[in-house]
Amino acid sequence: MKLLLTIFFTLSLFSFSNASVLDFCVADYTAPNGPAGYSCKKPSKVTVNDFVYSGLGTAGNTSNIIKAAVTPAFDAQFPGVNGLGISIARLDLAPGGVIPLHTHPGATELLVVVTGRICTGFVASDNTVYLKTLEKGDIMVYPQGLLHFQINAGGSPALAFVSFSSANPGLQILDFALFKSDFPTELITETTFIDAAVVKKLKGVLGGSG
Amino acid sequence: MKLLLTIFFTLSLFSFSNASVLDFCVADYTAPNGPAGYSCKKPSKVTVNDFVYSGLGTAGNTSNIIKAAVTPAFDAQFPGVNGLGISIARLDLAPGGVIPLHTHPGATELLVVVTGRICTGFVASDNTVYLKTLEKGDIMVYPQGLLHFQINAGGSPALAFVSFSSANPGLQILDFALFKSDFPTELITETTFIDAAVVKKLKGVLGGSG
Amino acid sequence: MKLLLTIFFTLSLFSFSNASVLDFCVADYTAPNGPAGYSCKKPSKVTVNDFVYSGLGTAGNTSNIIKAAVTPAFDAQFPGVNGLGISIARLDLAPGGVIPLHTHPGATELLVVVTGRICTGFVASDNTVYLKTLEKGDIMVYPQGLLHFQINAGGSPALAFVSFSSANPGLQILDFALFKSDFPTELITETTFIDAAVVKKLKGVLGGSG
Amino acid sequence: MKLLLTIFFTLSLFSFSNASVLDFCVADYTAPNGPAGYSCKKPSKVTVNDFVYSGLGTAGNTSNIIKAAVTPAFDAQFPGVNGLGISIARLDLAPGGVIPLHTHPGATELLVVVTGRICTGFVASDNTVYLKTLEKGDIMVYPQGLLHFQINAGGSPALAFVSFSSANPGLQILDFALFKSDFPTELITETTFIDAAVVKKLKGVLGGSG
Amino acid sequence: MKLLLTIFFTLSLFSFSNASVLDFCVADYTAPNGPAGYSCKKPSKVTVNDFVYSGLGTAGNTSNIIKAAVTPAFDAQFPGVNGLGISIARLDLAPGGVIPLHTHPGATELLVVVTGRICTGFVASDNTVYLKTLEKGDIMVYPQGLLHFQINAGGSPALAFVSFSSANPGLQILDFALFKSDFPTELITETTFIDAAVVKKLKGVLGGSG
Amino acid sequence: MKLLLTIFFTLSLFSFSNASVLDFCVADYTAPNGPAGYSCKKPSKVTVNDFVYSGLGTAGNTSNIIKAAVTPAFDAQFPGVNGLGISIARLDLAPGGVIPLHTHPGATELLVVVTGRICTGFVASDNTVYLKTLEKGDIMVYPQGLLHFQINAGGSPALAFVSFSSANPGLQILDFALFKSDFPTELITETTFIDAAVVKKLKGVLGGSG
Repeated sequence: MKLLLTIFFTLSLFSFSNASVLDFCVADYTAPNGPAGYSCKKPSKVTVNDFVYSGLGTAGNTSNIIKAAVTPAFDAQFPGVNGLGISIARLDLAPGGVIPLHTHPGATELLVVVTGRICTGFVASDNTVYLKTLEKGDIMVYPQGLLHFQINAGGSPALAFVSFSSANPGLQILDFALFKSDFPTELITETTFIDAAVVKKLKGVLGGSG
Repeated sequence: MKLLLTIFFTLSLFSFSNASVLDFCVADYTAPNGPAGYSCKKPSKVTVNDFVYSGLGTAGNTSNIIKAAVTPAFDAQFPGVNGLGISIARLDLAPGGVIPLHTHPGATELLVVVTGRICTGFVASDNTVYLKTLEKGDIMVYPQGLLHFQINAGGSPALAFVSFSSANPGLQILDFALFKSDFPTELITETTFIDAAVVKKLKGVLGGSG
Repeated sequence: MKLLLTIFFTLSLFSFSNASVLDFCVADYTAPNGPAGYSCKKPSKVTVNDFVYSGLGTAGNTSNIIKAAVTPAFDAQFPGVNGLGISIARLDLAPGGVIPLHTHPGATELLVVVTGRICTGFVASDNTVYLKTLEKGDIMVYPQGLLHFQINAGGSPALAFVSFSSANPGLQILDFALFKSDFPTELITETTFIDAAVVKKLKGVLGGSG
Repeated sequence: MKLLLTIFFTLSLFSFSNASVLDFCVADYTAPNGPAGYSCKKPSKVTVNDFVYSGLGTAGNTSNIIKAAVTPAFDAQFPGVNGLGISIARLDLAPGGVIPLHTHPGATELLVVVTGRICTGFVASDNTVYLKTLEKGDIMVYPQGLLHFQINAGGSPALAFVSFSSANPGLQILDFALFKSDFPTELITETTFIDAAVVKKLKGVLGGSG
Repeated sequence: MKLLLTIFFTLSLFSFSNASVLDFCVADYTAPNGPAGYSCKKPSKVTVNDFVYSGLGTAGNTSNIIKAAVTPAFDAQFPGVNGLGISIARLDLAPGGVIPLHTHPGATELLVVVTGRICTGFVASDNTVYLKTLEKGDIMVYPQGLLHFQINAGGSPALAFVSFSSANPGLQILDFALFKSDFPTELITETTFIDAAVVKKLKGVLGGSG
Repeated sequence: MKLLLTIFFTLSLFSFSNASVLDFCVADYTAPNGPAGYSCKKPSKVTVNDFVYSGLGTAGNTSNIIKAAVTPAFDAQFPGVNGLGISIARLDLAPGGVIPLHTHPGATELLVVVTGRICTGFVASDNTVYLKTLEKGDIMVYPQGLLHFQINAGGSPALAFVSFSSANPGLQILDFALFKSDFPTELITETTFIDAAVVKKLKGVLGGSG
């Protein structure tokens, strides 16, 4: 009986050995990437460590002006999520910490509060503002592409994990787009109604030019 | 021969009469909608006028402070595009006209200049600013969810059509989200570094509260 | 100036008021659902509480034989994620706790360890087993549809959050499918090579019949 | 032990009872449909017979001028495939039988020959014609939306099954679109360069008007 | 303060520098392409000119038998739309000009009339013909994969832009598929019921063989 | 007239020659693959034989312990289906033959019985078992990712074709995942409640280790 089984399994393994490689497509950062993600690493080179990432285990450095840090595990950092439609990041908010207004152009975000209290919200296309202060264990969803923010609403550090409906959600921080870029001040003023003097001051702080 | 054919066609038409209804799904605004769009109008009630829209034939009213108008033909206005992954809008820019910084949370935009000259650009997630002045006939693509704007760069009215990779692209105008909403001034200041006085002034102009 | 602006904004809001409702599609559990999810609640009835869920804030009850609990926030529990391609669940593993072998037929899973140590793994189509013991802060991805499990690998309670690349990932627990169902014992034996006596014993424990 | 298990399973079943209903979405033909398919039948009313269809078990009637029959099992006929991205049809070709040139606007087709020999082909966008005579057991794929045909290439009846990458592939038969419709003869002539006399003759045979 | 900010931004930019490259995937025509489109150009080589295309600014040459021209800006011509689900083309119709019956196997089309009058229509799977004469500014949608045409309905040149719900919509012109290819005449006759003499004549005009 | 036509067609062919290559993307197994499938073979090297596959024409070898064989035509075997969202396999079941419990992690399956009788079923997430004995010509759909099986229910060989809603459906055979792998026996026992002795015995038969 064992012999016959062996015959079957040999055939079977032969037939399916190639087909099975696309249960997943671990990113090969050395080959070309395309609209759907990175090329796939050869299956024989894949190990469990491609599916595990320890980069979120340590708090990000919040010794900065916003007293906050975002540590991503997107497909560019975590090869195992390539092509699988999901990724994650860690948010650390020291007391007084703020994640400034931003969008993820390519994904919906889902936040879970692990430690502390977080005041957060998003703005919809009809300019309705949805605001909430979240307690430990609360979750909140931010629909794709809409402006949102997070603020530490307590006196102690806050920790949250944010998941995304894409392996490559993108991140556009409003202040950086405007004031940490070479976006010409005149065009910013024309398209936001913010005075040139205000724009220049913020560019001075954030390092923008133009 | 005609008789036999009739037999065949009768059978055939019977078999396929239901299947064919989903070549398209013209929006029925009176039934529930879902994540993929509006419910479908019954095929027997669909006419060519569901696939044709004349609302973009007239220039939008640019007698306003931005000297510009956007006239959409999204699934909410144009039932024929429901579920088909495409829509369009008309941009009218009087001399000096501006479409302020905005995003489309759910779609890539493709602009074609029909009349005039338009200065336009978008900002990517890495804060690179892509700027260009477009001439008549030029096209430009704005990848999904990124901040972008359009300004009349000539002395005469400009007209453009913008297509979207979704029947429901959404539209989030930055200034409206911040200053024409009830987004609390304190939170705006914390999450954008824009002074409260500036925020309040813009809210005064645009009609925001909070 | 304010007057002119008002004219513009009135026009503008009118144009976009309908289009904007599909930034999101909060589940209306009283209307028909379809392949893409639940029908959408009317925008006028949507509040921030539709986007926030507190059901994961409390540990699940692990006073059971597997010393573990799974608390989901899928679209059926959390209306705000409907149609947005993401959801989440909370895993509680008391010392000795086990989430038995299972699959999510419709989603990739991404786990983050919040407290404790978790031994976990999945099996690929080519029968390769990927195993790892995760520490606090580690993340692991389980590609869509593959068998996987989690076991508390420490002496104290473990807590993890698992995100999914779908608002409706499904959950098929292997033992429940076989031994807590009315799957006829004879067919189980024929299709798994597990002796009928073993099947019957497990059905006795888990409550299956047939 | 059994008692404790029961506690766990009771909790567990409660948690997942709703979520699990969207493993599938059996078509409810009495509720509204949308771009993604029909509304879902209530899970409590679903039986195995929703997933099984016997309508392809009998040969279609080939006593017609094309000596052929197509019997579809699309979502409109077979409720179990609704929303699942697949469907099937049966092709019967009597000796001399022909499935005329046609397209499926919404799906790729994959044919398998069960009985007989079939001469078949498709035309690509660059006007390359891919032709082949298939033997029993051969399969052929026709990429989405391209013109293709099947002809019985043997002296005995041929049987094939054709699968589609959509539950609602659509079917546009070229001759029916032109000559069995009310497409004005003048417009057909202008847009196909086929003489009006030829058009009128074919309309006479196929039952078209205009 | 500026110093601390610099620390933060340095960290932040490092973290996100790779992730942000897939806001877009400008086509690299020298690397392999795949089902989702072309490989991505390295971000450091992308400029605004990848997102702008001037090839539609000039009227196509209508000095031909159909008095019409189609000028595409698909992903093969316009690298910026690669992977973004949208593209565009320019239609020029001299007086008497005709775009013959054709399909786009991979996309829905949305037409806007910029100059002139255009008589147009499409045929659905149930052989219903939807016809309309469009005026300047009118738009019409042609659902994916269905036969459609455009004819200049006025005495002066007509100009239209047509957008597509794919960066690679394809284009199958019915007459070219049949009469400008090497599709064997005998097979055309069998699968369209058009007389061999008619087929041969049209092949003579259009350059087909077989 | 022919001359003018030639001018038009030359222009036209030039314009569309590149765009048309992605009607399909025949797999090039020598170039990198990605999440959406294999790279595309150069169009000039594609022939009709890329779209035709004869590997399913011969019965699989059922001289094995399960008296059954599965012969796949997935994208790894059949280059023409790459990226097209469909594939197929052949099932041969000798009298007494069984396809053991398995899942396809990436696709829905649709079975058609060509010869014989087949007892089959699947288990849903709520542990409902859907069972049916299918006759010749019957079809059954197995929603994505759910456990299912097929057994020859007659006294003679049975033949079925199974189509999938993906070019790369995957195949996870439950017994192979558990007992033909190096899944540690202790972990199997912990996560399935199957006694170690039973696990070891099955590993002995199927060739597993650990």
